[in-house]
Amino acid sequence: MKTTTVTLGHGSGGRQSAELVRFLVEGFMTRGIGPELEDAALLPGGYAMTVDGFTVMPRKFPGGDLGHLAVCGCANDLAVRGASPDYLGLSLVIEEGFPLDELKDYMESAAATCAAIGMTLAAGDTKVVPAGGVEGVLFSGCAFGKVHSPFPLGIGNLREGDILIVSGPIGRHGAAIASARFSLEVEGLESDCAPLWPAVRPLLSLGGLRCMRDCTRGGLGTVLCEWAEGSGLSIALEEEAIPIELQVQSLCDVLGFDPLYMACEGTLALAVAPEDGQKALSLLKESAIGRNAAVIGQVSGGEPKGMVSMRTSIGGERLVDMPWGELLPRIC
Amino acid sequence: MKTTTVTLGHGSGGRQSAELVRFLVEGFMTRGIGPELEDAALLPGGYAMTVDGFTVMPRKFPGGDLGHLAVCGCANDLAVRGASPDYLGLSLVIEEGFPLDELKDYMESAAATCAAIGMTLAAGDTKVVPAGGVEGVLFSGCAFGKVHSPFPLGIGNLREGDILIVSGPIGRHGAAIASARFSLEVEGLESDCAPLWPAVRPLLSLGGLRCMRDCTRGGLGTVLCEWAEGSGLSIALEEEAIPIELQVQSLCDVLGFDPLYMACEGTLALAVAPEDGQKALSLLKESAIGRNAAVIGQVSGGEPKGMVSMRTSIGGERLVDMPWGELLPRIC
Repeated sequence: MKTTTVTLGHGSGGRQSAELVRFLVEGFMTRGIGPELEDAALLPGGYAMTVDGFTVMPRKFPGGDLGHLAVCGCANDLAVRGASPDYLGLSLVIEEGFPLDELKDYMESAAATCAAIGMTLAAGDTKVVPAGGVEGVLFSGCAFGKVHSPFPLGIGNLREGDILIVSGPIGRHGAAIASARFSLEVEGLESDCAPLWPAVRPLLSLGGLRCMRDCTRGGLGTVLCEWAEGSGLSIALEEEAIPIELQVQSLCDVLGFDPLYMACEGTLALAVAPEDGQKALSLLKESAIGRNAAVIGQVSGGEPKGMVSMRTSIGGERLVDMPWGELLPRIC
Repeated sequence: MKTTTVTLGHGSGGRQSAELVRFLVEGFMTRGIGPELEDAALLPGGYAMTVDGFTVMPRKFPGGDLGHLAVCGCANDLAVRGASPDYLGLSLVIEEGFPLDELKDYMESAAATCAAIGMTLAAGDTKVVPAGGVEGVLFSGCAFGKVHSPFPLGIGNLREGDILIVSGPIGRHGAAIASARFSLEVEGLESDCAPLWPAVRPLLSLGGLRCMRDCTRGGLGTVLCEWAEGSGLSIALEEEAIPIELQVQSLCDVLGFDPLYMACEGTLALAVAPEDGQKALSLLKESAIGRNAAVIGQVSGGEPKGMVSMRTSIGGERLVDMPWGELLPRIC
């Protein structure tokens, strides 16, 4: 670690976050009781579990709120490992003086989202801290579900030639939070925050499905960098093919952000064997979140190994690296 | 709810906490996807899960620290429902500027406790918030494990005549935190923070085992009130029989606290059928945390129904009610 204290960059979801996590879990790893560092853990017996903290600010944003986000965040971590969102646990740390009505709004929103995807709130906890102990309220969620994919999905399955697909336009959650944070009203701009399970369920029948990821903090760019690094293969993207809404692009232009690294909360990246590419695309297009799904590139055995390159819309080529430092704190 | 905002009393673990929880989970309950409100949820397939937030202040205290507490808190919620502490998830919300070394200390402490009870860190998450977003660091933990009890343990099993046992002297965690908070050094006073599973495991062979609880926030008194209210039976305690260390009693006398409501973090309350009472006691006494286990009363069919009464050491009788308001914030 290059610093002695935690910095906002450690919360970016990019390379520094990965460093922080490796630093913190060292004592577990050396004892042989550490995690595999995927979105959700696959447990013996055919179950998956995940845990996630939610610190989003503002807590109500175009397209969602803290409660909806917490349920989607947890459920989506399960979905991308092929598991159904069966059981949720919610832990709330609340600042003394927080309005009960606002808190209830988030819980109501969480309940509605759970009901829509068949998820049960199995466990919960509330803690209250004196004023200043926490700014408002923090949610942490955990989720547990049955694995429905016939084989384990993960980075280890990636093969040369695999097709890369994204389920919809990227960066909408990050852009919606940024617009709310900086009071930049952008008409039609909404977070993509949504449960992925309904779109994922049919994909699990594809024998060529390799790996899926919920593009959250760090965005699509970070997910693909992790795939390239984790597999040792290279990834070739077509910039023109990556769906980006005009509103998101405009906001990024104004604020100097790269949409590739903007957070999504209901957008899936997936790799699939070439023979199942079209089938995966058409299955996705039938789902509520996947109408604008697109093939954006492929896994290649070429150079540079372990890295992501992108053919830009003007015909050049650039390397896509993990972001360093913090784009926007408290995005999720 | 009698107020419009969350108060410290809502965090006490007593009656107001129960009110807050019922208020917040209403949207889940009306949709038929709500929790059963026990320490851990029993899931189909023979598994249990739990979630818990940890806000303790100071983060290092006599007998433990935030990391050790988080593991014990989660593992103990599973243990009292008869489940082994198999998998842990940890979600950290960290304030920008927090010392990395201190954070690593808590993770190391968590890893050592996990290793001691055979628990694997399966999932984790870190979020960093700007200064002021949270005071230092908060841990939330979730845990998941296989249920080993041959039948579900819970309040519903309580029967007239059941023997009530506590595994050791009560109130030590609360007293240790209070002593650290108010800089009242008390020699020999340490939190009881410890994993309960090694003591619980042998008890599961008893056919007469009814119900167990980890006496955390709200202490032994609150647990027994919940049992009496939940079962509709009455509970009769013998004050003389309840083990309390001299240090804890002295500190409570100084600060005006009642040890009955002081938090424990490694102390078990259990109800067992009369024919298994002595066996339960002797099994507990063989465990590391149970050497001073004691029979403290019994479940009765008498009056007042749904309430706890205690024969005091001077021969009187008092009703034990759930605490109202906050004893001490950020105890766990």
